[in-house]
Amino acid sequence: MRSATWWARRWRVLRVAEAIFRRLVIIGIGLIGSSIARGARAFGGIAETLVICDADPEALARAQVLGLGEVYEADPAVAVAGADCVIMCAPVGALAGLAAVIAPHLAAGAILSDVGSTKQSVVRDVAPLVPAGVTFVPAHPIAGTEFSGPDAGLADLFKGRWSLVTPLPETDEGAVQKIEALWRGLGAQTARMDPAHHDRVLAIVSHLPHLIAFTICGTADDLADETRQEVLQFAASGFRDFTRIAASDPVMWRDIFLNNKEALLEMFSRFSEDAQAMARAVRWGDTDYIENKIKDSRKIRKSLIDLNQA
Amino acid sequence: MRSATWWARRWRVLRVAEAIFRRLVIIGIGLIGSSIARGARAFGGIAETLVICDADPEALARAQVLGLGEVYEADPAVAVAGADCVIMCAPVGALAGLAAVIAPHLAAGAILSDVGSTKQSVVRDVAPLVPAGVTFVPAHPIAGTEFSGPDAGLADLFKGRWSLVTPLPETDEGAVQKIEALWRGLGAQTARMDPAHHDRVLAIVSHLPHLIAFTICGTADDLADETRQEVLQFAASGFRDFTRIAASDPVMWRDIFLNNKEALLEMFSRFSEDAQAMARAVRWGDTDYIENKIKDSRKIRKSLIDLNQA
Repeated sequence: MRSATWWARRWRVLRVAEAIFRRLVIIGIGLIGSSIARGARAFGGIAETLVICDADPEALARAQVLGLGEVYEADPAVAVAGADCVIMCAPVGALAGLAAVIAPHLAAGAILSDVGSTKQSVVRDVAPLVPAGVTFVPAHPIAGTEFSGPDAGLADLFKGRWSLVTPLPETDEGAVQKIEALWRGLGAQTARMDPAHHDRVLAIVSHLPHLIAFTICGTADDLADETRQEVLQFAASGFRDFTRIAASDPVMWRDIFLNNKEALLEMFSRFSEDAQAMARAVRWGDTDYIENKIKDSRKIRKSLIDLNQA
Repeated sequence: MRSATWWARRWRVLRVAEAIFRRLVIIGIGLIGSSIARGARAFGGIAETLVICDADPEALARAQVLGLGEVYEADPAVAVAGADCVIMCAPVGALAGLAAVIAPHLAAGAILSDVGSTKQSVVRDVAPLVPAGVTFVPAHPIAGTEFSGPDAGLADLFKGRWSLVTPLPETDEGAVQKIEALWRGLGAQTARMDPAHHDRVLAIVSHLPHLIAFTICGTADDLADETRQEVLQFAASGFRDFTRIAASDPVMWRDIFLNNKEALLEMFSRFSEDAQAMARAVRWGDTDYIENKIKDSRKIRKSLIDLNQA
């Protein structure tokens, strides 16, 4: 019979042999970063050593209390030393500055990735800073909740969700496959997409809905005090869903809007035209127009249900 | 020891003695109508006899299969005979026609009520048709799901939610209190409100969010085929919530929009100004404006959580 120590050692050998990365560094231990850390721990096979890095001492201390990794380091330049994979989990507006700090310290052969919701801006900001011998593989897991911080992470946040990988044509295929393997290891499905196309699709499915939700919550908040109180009191289901969307992190979303400006403004302009047409139909009592538009909008819901995305 | 028959008879006596209404008629056995019927059955004390009426033979037959009431009747003029309470659960655009049909057949002393989402239009359309000796008490339970029909009803749909009662100054106080008792018996909280004020509050918390959700789903559906497919595939959480809201009944919502035109268009106009200002800030990179607006919108979410409405 084998001893417990033998099994523990054997298990470690297997874990090391099977792990995609030897030393994985997560920079930024918010909702996404801490979900990656928890998932890597829960599902195994992703990293031999998990290094957690956050410039915010409070978040880093909390990550350590939660036991999210093996190594904790506040300085990103120190954290990335000797790593074979570094994932930047910071708001997209902070990635250029962060990449500039870590670039000189990245090991040859390392893979650099991110989880940003806009991909053209990330390619524009980060790719020029990546040193020779390091491969940059931009990625975007389409998952989240309205909560933020190291406590908000969920091991199964990515389970059954999509993670989009947006490599450039010249990106090393082996590195792309390793990042895809990481996301599949966390339970996600992966797809490859051109960065510009990614930004257009995300503008309509995520960025515009958030801009609208933030706006209508502000519109309600600006109402006269008496009505505002009743808005809160009688918030029907429609409004509750909007406030849930609007509860997300302000800096993250500010950065997303500014870094996907063109696609977002195009989708906003299409939406505005459609909304004005609907308001006009309400004003002039165009029953058929209103009913048909509502029926059309149900089609897309039905398709989502058929695709198991509802 | 008492026999089972004794207990059954005793229970019926108690039930009858305690019930608010002797004969309650629900006209329209959709989501709201069937939820009232299920709740009345589940919680007791509301009606001695429940009469289910629906002009759609399929819905009526289904209600009978589900055992939602004691009496089933397709003709509303026949259904209301001898009732001490009639609740019209039809789209607000259909209430004038329905009230005209049932008015001559309402018993003296009966209470007529409704569940419409717009209250000024209901008072305008129904009040003039109500015969002397009958009291009209308009009401609006703020609860719902995106599903429709007799199968969609839930006994606890109204539990913990608000039901707004909008009597006119001359409405008989006893009748108002009976309708309030009915809603509290179904688990709801009640509040009284002026019909015009009701319509303004509902315009921002429910009608405008639905108009926006219908619109953005249509905007997405109009995108070029390739992008549309990916919109469906990668629907992030923001878009999923919008499609859920947009899945509601087209005729019901068409009627709501047309019957709360003024308040809805005023709220839409406020929202449009705010959305244009946000889009302009994105175009010109006004970081502070965007971040502050997002922070403001979180405040209203926080208030909802504090009020237990989130």
